[in-house]
Amino acid sequence: MKEIAADMAERPERGKVASYIPELAKIDPKKFGIVVIDDEGNVASGGDSEAPFSIQSISKVFTLTLALGKIGDKLWQRVGREPSGSAFNSIVQLEYEKGKPRNPFINAGAIAVTDVIVSGHQPRESLGEILHFVRFLAEDNSIKIDDEVAASEQRTGFRNSALANYMKSFGVLENPVHFTLGVYFHHCAIAMSCKQLAMAGRFLATNGINPSTDMSVVTPERAKRINSIMMMCGHYDGSGEFAYRVGLPGKSGVGGGILAIAPGKASIAVWSPGLDENGNSYLGRIALEQLTRRMGWSVFGV
Amino acid sequence: MKEIAADMAERPERGKVASYIPELAKIDPKKFGIVVIDDEGNVASGGDSEAPFSIQSISKVFTLTLALGKIGDKLWQRVGREPSGSAFNSIVQLEYEKGKPRNPFINAGAIAVTDVIVSGHQPRESLGEILHFVRFLAEDNSIKIDDEVAASEQRTGFRNSALANYMKSFGVLENPVHFTLGVYFHHCAIAMSCKQLAMAGRFLATNGINPSTDMSVVTPERAKRINSIMMMCGHYDGSGEFAYRVGLPGKSGVGGGILAIAPGKASIAVWSPGLDENGNSYLGRIALEQLTRRMGWSVFGV
Amino acid sequence: MKEIAADMAERPERGKVASYIPELAKIDPKKFGIVVIDDEGNVASGGDSEAPFSIQSISKVFTLTLALGKIGDKLWQRVGREPSGSAFNSIVQLEYEKGKPRNPFINAGAIAVTDVIVSGHQPRESLGEILHFVRFLAEDNSIKIDDEVAASEQRTGFRNSALANYMKSFGVLENPVHFTLGVYFHHCAIAMSCKQLAMAGRFLATNGINPSTDMSVVTPERAKRINSIMMMCGHYDGSGEFAYRVGLPGKSGVGGGILAIAPGKASIAVWSPGLDENGNSYLGRIALEQLTRRMGWSVFGV
Amino acid sequence: MKEIAADMAERPERGKVASYIPELAKIDPKKFGIVVIDDEGNVASGGDSEAPFSIQSISKVFTLTLALGKIGDKLWQRVGREPSGSAFNSIVQLEYEKGKPRNPFINAGAIAVTDVIVSGHQPRESLGEILHFVRFLAEDNSIKIDDEVAASEQRTGFRNSALANYMKSFGVLENPVHFTLGVYFHHCAIAMSCKQLAMAGRFLATNGINPSTDMSVVTPERAKRINSIMMMCGHYDGSGEFAYRVGLPGKSGVGGGILAIAPGKASIAVWSPGLDENGNSYLGRIALEQLTRRMGWSVFGV
Repeated sequence: MKEIAADMAERPERGKVASYIPELAKIDPKKFGIVVIDDEGNVASGGDSEAPFSIQSISKVFTLTLALGKIGDKLWQRVGREPSGSAFNSIVQLEYEKGKPRNPFINAGAIAVTDVIVSGHQPRESLGEILHFVRFLAEDNSIKIDDEVAASEQRTGFRNSALANYMKSFGVLENPVHFTLGVYFHHCAIAMSCKQLAMAGRFLATNGINPSTDMSVVTPERAKRINSIMMMCGHYDGSGEFAYRVGLPGKSGVGGGILAIAPGKASIAVWSPGLDENGNSYLGRIALEQLTRRMGWSVFGV
Repeated sequence: MKEIAADMAERPERGKVASYIPELAKIDPKKFGIVVIDDEGNVASGGDSEAPFSIQSISKVFTLTLALGKIGDKLWQRVGREPSGSAFNSIVQLEYEKGKPRNPFINAGAIAVTDVIVSGHQPRESLGEILHFVRFLAEDNSIKIDDEVAASEQRTGFRNSALANYMKSFGVLENPVHFTLGVYFHHCAIAMSCKQLAMAGRFLATNGINPSTDMSVVTPERAKRINSIMMMCGHYDGSGEFAYRVGLPGKSGVGGGILAIAPGKASIAVWSPGLDENGNSYLGRIALEQLTRRMGWSVFGV
Repeated sequence: MKEIAADMAERPERGKVASYIPELAKIDPKKFGIVVIDDEGNVASGGDSEAPFSIQSISKVFTLTLALGKIGDKLWQRVGREPSGSAFNSIVQLEYEKGKPRNPFINAGAIAVTDVIVSGHQPRESLGEILHFVRFLAEDNSIKIDDEVAASEQRTGFRNSALANYMKSFGVLENPVHFTLGVYFHHCAIAMSCKQLAMAGRFLATNGINPSTDMSVVTPERAKRINSIMMMCGHYDGSGEFAYRVGLPGKSGVGGGILAIAPGKASIAVWSPGLDENGNSYLGRIALEQLTRRMGWSVFGV
Repeated sequence: MKEIAADMAERPERGKVASYIPELAKIDPKKFGIVVIDDEGNVASGGDSEAPFSIQSISKVFTLTLALGKIGDKLWQRVGREPSGSAFNSIVQLEYEKGKPRNPFINAGAIAVTDVIVSGHQPRESLGEILHFVRFLAEDNSIKIDDEVAASEQRTGFRNSALANYMKSFGVLENPVHFTLGVYFHHCAIAMSCKQLAMAGRFLATNGINPSTDMSVVTPERAKRINSIMMMCGHYDGSGEFAYRVGLPGKSGVGGGILAIAPGKASIAVWSPGLDENGNSYLGRIALEQLTRRMGWSVFGV
């Protein structure tokens, strides 16, 4: 981990920090962190591994897990499971497919998943439930929502508002648009460190079991299937690239974080704020490529 | 294998045999075959495991391997590696992306890959090279091209002809359109049994090594990457579904065959002519789902 | 006019009353009215010519005229002038053309035009200005906004809300989204009779002059150009059909009204609530086809 | 005419000569010609009014007229009448509308119309029929096809070949693709002068009558309707612009010609090889704008 962090620290090309959410544009592009937790709970880390950052779309893994817990496979009537073949905020696909988003990891799909969690509750309650679940997974009650990031996105998130209203016009959302959007903007604004994130992802590497307590978070079947969706759709229109180079299920966020899962082996979190043209962490992907090559962790072969 | 074949034999719902290539429409929908070859060369089979069928798009795995052998990563200047988010014969994406196909496993991409193999040769020579490679992989010189299927597709393949001419207009194809298309239609018409197909796929399960001879077919790196593309793009717009249910890299053909790879474990071929709405074998996918669940072979967890 | 109204009254096939705005769905599909005012001010009418109906998208002609009066040709930096080739509420084109609507008569374009009128004012003021302008054109101060229709659309207009937020994300709208949308929903809810509507359209048939007062409403050049846009874009994806059958510039609304202009000859308003599959009045178009054929008014020949 | 030609001769900005058909790229961009023939047969001309040029897509007006003569309104089962909202050679719309082109003036539509004329005949016969019709309309037997232009396009027309094969796959074309395409490429290569073209267009300005002989070429109804399609679809994705600025039905070709019709008044042909970004003659449109403004010929008002 130290070696990888040191190598990454020296690289001049780091991608571009997300600018469309004003609060995120302020982050230092030099930051880099990485944490690996294996199936026995051993932790290896490098760089800024305990500095919190905005997890953004990585929260979609946790909301998907929660929503599946609530309504099970009925979720798939509202959201598909296929790669989108287009950008994370595209609205074109929604028109061709009558308001049904292609998968839970593009923005439209994650808004539809959030709507399932809101379902009849007040936004504040729903948000509390999500935050509680993330704290439970990470075993850390200090995890918080960054209200400035949430407010910043709420003020400027017209594209997400368009997606939500568009789905509402097809009846895909059940709650008032501003309820669902409010919860969505806030769970994207959860701040976590690589350490916390890798902790929270462990259940996906261990067949659904929380290894600290040996209790089941989800069934092995469900853990497996969430991993498959992360592989196919976790990096927007760069998912093929991530599979080709890293070979692990993963989910990126525009805050520069990536959560990657080596099934049966490890939960990995990496953070570098600069993004590539698909909105995925530039150095984060390179670091993961180095890691999986050295460890032979790619699911596709040595 | 016998159990799975027996279960499949009883199922009334079998999908629809492909009708757009007249020769394929004549196949008996009751056929079913499955063969698994593990990393030590042990063969298990069930059903019509030695009956030849038209491998159709499964040939794209072998032409991709050949083309990478010829020009290496330069191939990616002509073809992408991302899931398409649309049907196997869609032309829309080509217009938006200026004639560059999204991946080597949709028709347009496979035609572009074929063009690389043709590159300056006569169609007959190129076809000979492809057939020779497939026979080498399967260790079986009796494998043949079904000329009636090839002729049937050549007479009716207007959609593929549109794709090829469209790419030619953007300079993506270098050879005369009818050269490249001729080779394409013929390699799709290779006839193989499940046994032969599983044999031919072994190198992808064994890090690029031919386990019979211990010689390298491709580097471990390349085997891994071909697997990743099979996972992301191997089942057209049903690739997400296949990953979700089966959890293995795989490639389907409209002849009803599927080649699936359990990296480090096994090469698997299955055949049932009836197709689902995405053009993938209906029972083939169900059989593979049963198999991976029983064996714990999904790359995404137990 | 009486003959045409009588013929229309007998026709069994009348199209379908718009259902997506609940208030509009209550209208009696048997209603039919027609009024023609020639360039000398002679009025001919038939059927329910004085019954008010919701003019809906026909208001876009008046807001376009007002916005051109405010900022002139600068308007065309925000909105195009080409037919859209798609449905009235499509959002696909907006994505491909970076938030710039194709023309002022599809919903997105009319919202952008409304935003120009709002420009810095309170919604109430802007709405007052629009209503004042329509009353001035129609020479009738009794014209009102139907608040129930406006409220009905505001509650259910998620698609328009999506369009507005989408344009806002590209900076095409300058005012708060709910300001602009509020004004948009209300000017679409103006209620007018065929008589009032034909009066309000006269300036387009008389080179921009108000024939009662001989004062100029717009320049002859501008009247001509507004007519050209009505011809090319006035009936959504049925504009070609309307040109082919009627041969006049016209603008339809989902309330079942059509305003048509015979340049140099007459202003015509027709109303029948049943719509065809493109959202244009079914009998209204047939009545106009009869009228122009009898009068030889098509701009394309006798 | 002389004044307009002189004004045009001085303009430095002339657009870009079409380069995608190699033969057309050789034309001198300084050429400019204009001819007006009024309803009494008076001819006014300016510039290179008797120099032949490649009429290209303007031939689509004549083939549409011929095909309507053959099968009447049945033509509209194969081709639509709506503006396309996209480029002249787009294939996207064909996929969304199952192989049915939007109108007879985009390439796909004109190929489908050509297929109707070919219908069972040898290409040579069909081409003879088209050439005979054009000579008859222009009253000039010296009009010829430029074989070098035809051959040039046939060698490089991959995009049109893609469109034709695509429609064939949906059954929209009845004849062998290379028959229909051969005839299409050749009728686009007809060479005519402005004088000949204006002569050939007269029947559209005179309600379908050939004014020299007083014989009917088409019914008044049909002349009117062809004009409406020229207005709505005659300039590809610049049709709105042409209506807005010129206000006449017209059809452009990438050779730089435009045929425009002032119904009841005149047939007008103009030629300047430089094109705008939509593939329409840059100076040709400006010349027509000047002409219609001076003459008050816009169908939309003085």
